[in-house]
Amino acid sequence: MGYTIQQIAEALDAEAFGNTSLKINRVAEPALAGPDDLALLTNPKFADGLALGKARVALVWPGADWQALGLEGAIISTRGRFGMSGLTAMVDPGQHFPIGIHPSAVVDPSAQIGNDVSIGPLAVIGPRAVIGDQSMIGPHCYVGADVTLGTQTFLREMVSIGARATIGDRFIAQPGARIAGDGFSFVTPEKSGVEAARETLGDQGEVTAQSWARIHSLGSVTIGNDVEVGSNTCIDCGTIRDTIIGNGVKLDNMVHIAHNVEIGDDTLLAGQCGIAGSTKIGRNVVMGGQCGVSDNTTIGDNVIAGGGSKMMSKVPAGRVVLGYPAVKMESHLEMYKGLRRLPRLFKDFAALQNSVSKRDTKD
Amino acid sequence: MGYTIQQIAEALDAEAFGNTSLKINRVAEPALAGPDDLALLTNPKFADGLALGKARVALVWPGADWQALGLEGAIISTRGRFGMSGLTAMVDPGQHFPIGIHPSAVVDPSAQIGNDVSIGPLAVIGPRAVIGDQSMIGPHCYVGADVTLGTQTFLREMVSIGARATIGDRFIAQPGARIAGDGFSFVTPEKSGVEAARETLGDQGEVTAQSWARIHSLGSVTIGNDVEVGSNTCIDCGTIRDTIIGNGVKLDNMVHIAHNVEIGDDTLLAGQCGIAGSTKIGRNVVMGGQCGVSDNTTIGDNVIAGGGSKMMSKVPAGRVVLGYPAVKMESHLEMYKGLRRLPRLFKDFAALQNSVSKRDTKD
Amino acid sequence: MGYTIQQIAEALDAEAFGNTSLKINRVAEPALAGPDDLALLTNPKFADGLALGKARVALVWPGADWQALGLEGAIISTRGRFGMSGLTAMVDPGQHFPIGIHPSAVVDPSAQIGNDVSIGPLAVIGPRAVIGDQSMIGPHCYVGADVTLGTQTFLREMVSIGARATIGDRFIAQPGARIAGDGFSFVTPEKSGVEAARETLGDQGEVTAQSWARIHSLGSVTIGNDVEVGSNTCIDCGTIRDTIIGNGVKLDNMVHIAHNVEIGDDTLLAGQCGIAGSTKIGRNVVMGGQCGVSDNTTIGDNVIAGGGSKMMSKVPAGRVVLGYPAVKMESHLEMYKGLRRLPRLFKDFAALQNSVSKRDTKD
Repeated sequence: MGYTIQQIAEALDAEAFGNTSLKINRVAEPALAGPDDLALLTNPKFADGLALGKARVALVWPGADWQALGLEGAIISTRGRFGMSGLTAMVDPGQHFPIGIHPSAVVDPSAQIGNDVSIGPLAVIGPRAVIGDQSMIGPHCYVGADVTLGTQTFLREMVSIGARATIGDRFIAQPGARIAGDGFSFVTPEKSGVEAARETLGDQGEVTAQSWARIHSLGSVTIGNDVEVGSNTCIDCGTIRDTIIGNGVKLDNMVHIAHNVEIGDDTLLAGQCGIAGSTKIGRNVVMGGQCGVSDNTTIGDNVIAGGGSKMMSKVPAGRVVLGYPAVKMESHLEMYKGLRRLPRLFKDFAALQNSVSKRDTKD
Repeated sequence: MGYTIQQIAEALDAEAFGNTSLKINRVAEPALAGPDDLALLTNPKFADGLALGKARVALVWPGADWQALGLEGAIISTRGRFGMSGLTAMVDPGQHFPIGIHPSAVVDPSAQIGNDVSIGPLAVIGPRAVIGDQSMIGPHCYVGADVTLGTQTFLREMVSIGARATIGDRFIAQPGARIAGDGFSFVTPEKSGVEAARETLGDQGEVTAQSWARIHSLGSVTIGNDVEVGSNTCIDCGTIRDTIIGNGVKLDNMVHIAHNVEIGDDTLLAGQCGIAGSTKIGRNVVMGGQCGVSDNTTIGDNVIAGGGSKMMSKVPAGRVVLGYPAVKMESHLEMYKGLRRLPRLFKDFAALQNSVSKRDTKD
Repeated sequence: MGYTIQQIAEALDAEAFGNTSLKINRVAEPALAGPDDLALLTNPKFADGLALGKARVALVWPGADWQALGLEGAIISTRGRFGMSGLTAMVDPGQHFPIGIHPSAVVDPSAQIGNDVSIGPLAVIGPRAVIGDQSMIGPHCYVGADVTLGTQTFLREMVSIGARATIGDRFIAQPGARIAGDGFSFVTPEKSGVEAARETLGDQGEVTAQSWARIHSLGSVTIGNDVEVGSNTCIDCGTIRDTIIGNGVKLDNMVHIAHNVEIGDDTLLAGQCGIAGSTKIGRNVVMGGQCGVSDNTTIGDNVIAGGGSKMMSKVPAGRVVLGYPAVKMESHLEMYKGLRRLPRLFKDFAALQNSVSKRDTKD
């Protein structure tokens, strides 16, 4: 670390003001900032915090009067929160994983390790695995047989990648992510109650106890460039072909991607979302936390789903949905408003019934 | 690999037609199949795909005219999708875990290792653990003290099994599965707000802040034969006796099985389901993804629950349920239909009110 | 083991009766208890079980006539279930992790290891990590750079703790818990559809495809004393400052705590709960399984949320909530009662409409 305000502003394509040669060591919230920290003040509502801390310089919102805020210098970024991306990348202190191939790692002699690759303590690299240049494989990671990883892969500790997965450049996986576990696919010898209940919407017919036979996963997982997957997230193998994750996809913690799923470019799924088997998710889709999508359906491009939405059938491109089952957000809000007023409606209805019946009696 | 059409048909108890001596290397989707692949075409709606690929032979649906499809040979299985089980088992390329006990594995000298057992790199086997014949323990696995594993156990990488778990034959665990973590059981010195709120359905009474005291798990986990658990799925120890998983149970990824739960034979739970403490699930139950079941309740045999259902009280055997709270699927559909029509009902009701009141004024 | 009834009663601050010198080896459910086991019978409804087992002594409910139950001795605890905490701690057989620092562990020479610390096989301890006295680090654990762990830490197998996390005394982590993975924080260069849809409650405006830029996590995780986290639970780093977990917090399996979240003392979250970014949870909060809380909101002290509740906005202190979206439990029950009666209301309404219209015609 140790960048001047000027250097940081240049890196962010932003403007520096005041004493631009001041050097900073860390970034901090305004109230917690020390004299050598850059306070982050991209939202005016936190300006009062500055007085509680000791910051002399800050990254401030567009139009801020930094001198009136008592600062010696300032950086102004036109889209403050976007500036956070470049800034945090500059000052990220990192995980301090050891450089080089740790002597305790178990690397198969047939694996192809690129240039400037680090492999952490007690990692295992399987036969014929290929690891791209400048990659960092964390401690306790497992890279299976015939896996291909692109350049600048970064695996945190305890990530596992099963056989034959193919992953693009700049892949980031958080601790405990599971790539290419087997898909969950079982069949019964005879037609099952579930098949019958799906057809009839609720009637499973005569129940016959059956055991499940396993369908093995012959496919693996293909992941594009610039993908990040969260802690303990699971992406399963496809049955015949690979499960497919597009470029720029971001998956939060404990997301479940079942076999044969396809996810389009730049889609983002928040924590604990689950996508059931053979479903296709479009590009630029955004789902809040704990969403679910049924199997064998399609979610169009640019769909936005509020947290907890359960998409039980096809959602057309561009729709904003909410609820269980998920419907257009405006329909959901209208239905919900009705639901809240429902106890009142029952009372009003009873009163009206009463008044009509009295009237009838009177006549 | 390298099986003839004839060999595959025999293994599947199916019929082979045409040039049954053709050898295949892989199976593939019709559109992606090469000349030495067996195309999988168990559903006529994908027949057009054949023309896009180069398959000469296919596994086709019953009654298909394989010659009209332009094939040189075909396998016909009366229940196509069930045939997938045997076929995928035959041609599964596997994980290529090393055979034998890897020198980097840490095996307690008191452990009993069966015949033809493989133990992967950096696996740990605890004291007095017993591992059945022909088992494969993956890289980075942990098998705790006094654990018993049956024959033909297959653990993928990074599976952990806590002390004293007892598991039957042919157990399969996907990466990161957690067997026999401690149960989540805490008590307060005095009656807690939760206990009060449960009794009164909503009133927690006077609030007194209390800390939680831990109840240790003295039980472990008992699992039957032919069970499979998904990636990062967690099955907790019982409090006094073991948590119990029946024969043939299949759990998908990130399923949560709390302490003292009992699950009957051949039950199947899809991704991210959660079963709270001391609940009993019957046999042949099927739950879609993200279902939840409250603690201390009972789900009968053959229950089917649609994705996202939250079962908050007892569900009788054979019922098909949906919703939060889960009710009979047909009741749910009826309630939901009403909910969708609710905004309209408010309008119609206001109109009727108005017309009645006008009438009253007129009189 | 091998405690007399007298010793156990003293440890539990309870009373012993009858032959108090009887020694017990284990505790067991009444029906499964052997002659040297202490039967657990804190609820009279399980008294019949005694006859099925062989217990000579039991922990019984206050007021129980232990002699009439056929016992030779008994312990009576005024709050039976609370007594379970002390009792189970006494007789917990434990995991039998090896004592001392295992030769296969990889410990950075700059790490500070306290007195009486055990480090399991194949664990990795990073540079400058500090581990408090009497701690037990399980097999395959990872403790990152500059992490501080208090005294009597107990990590089960395969727990990972990222760089710079600070954790208090008596911390317990179940298998596969992930502390200090990176937060999930991404921005678009221009205003995104999600930002627009939030402002308009459903309209995302004109769709422009954008890729996501990563905001790095500069903060880590700070955890208080007496905290327990469940199997495969994930607590992410804060963006600028640490994510904060108070004293006495208990998290069940697969709970998701996003970046910047703050959780107050003695809060308990059941399995698969998820708390989105920058949300603040009060003290003594209790959430049932599979609850969710939106980002950037506040849940007050002593809130109780039923299983599956999705809290989509601020919840005031002391409230008992249920539903999606979560509302006061009594409102939820009222709304739900209305929903169940809704199909009937449509019929009754149609009948009333009909009767009024007939009346109008008649007039």
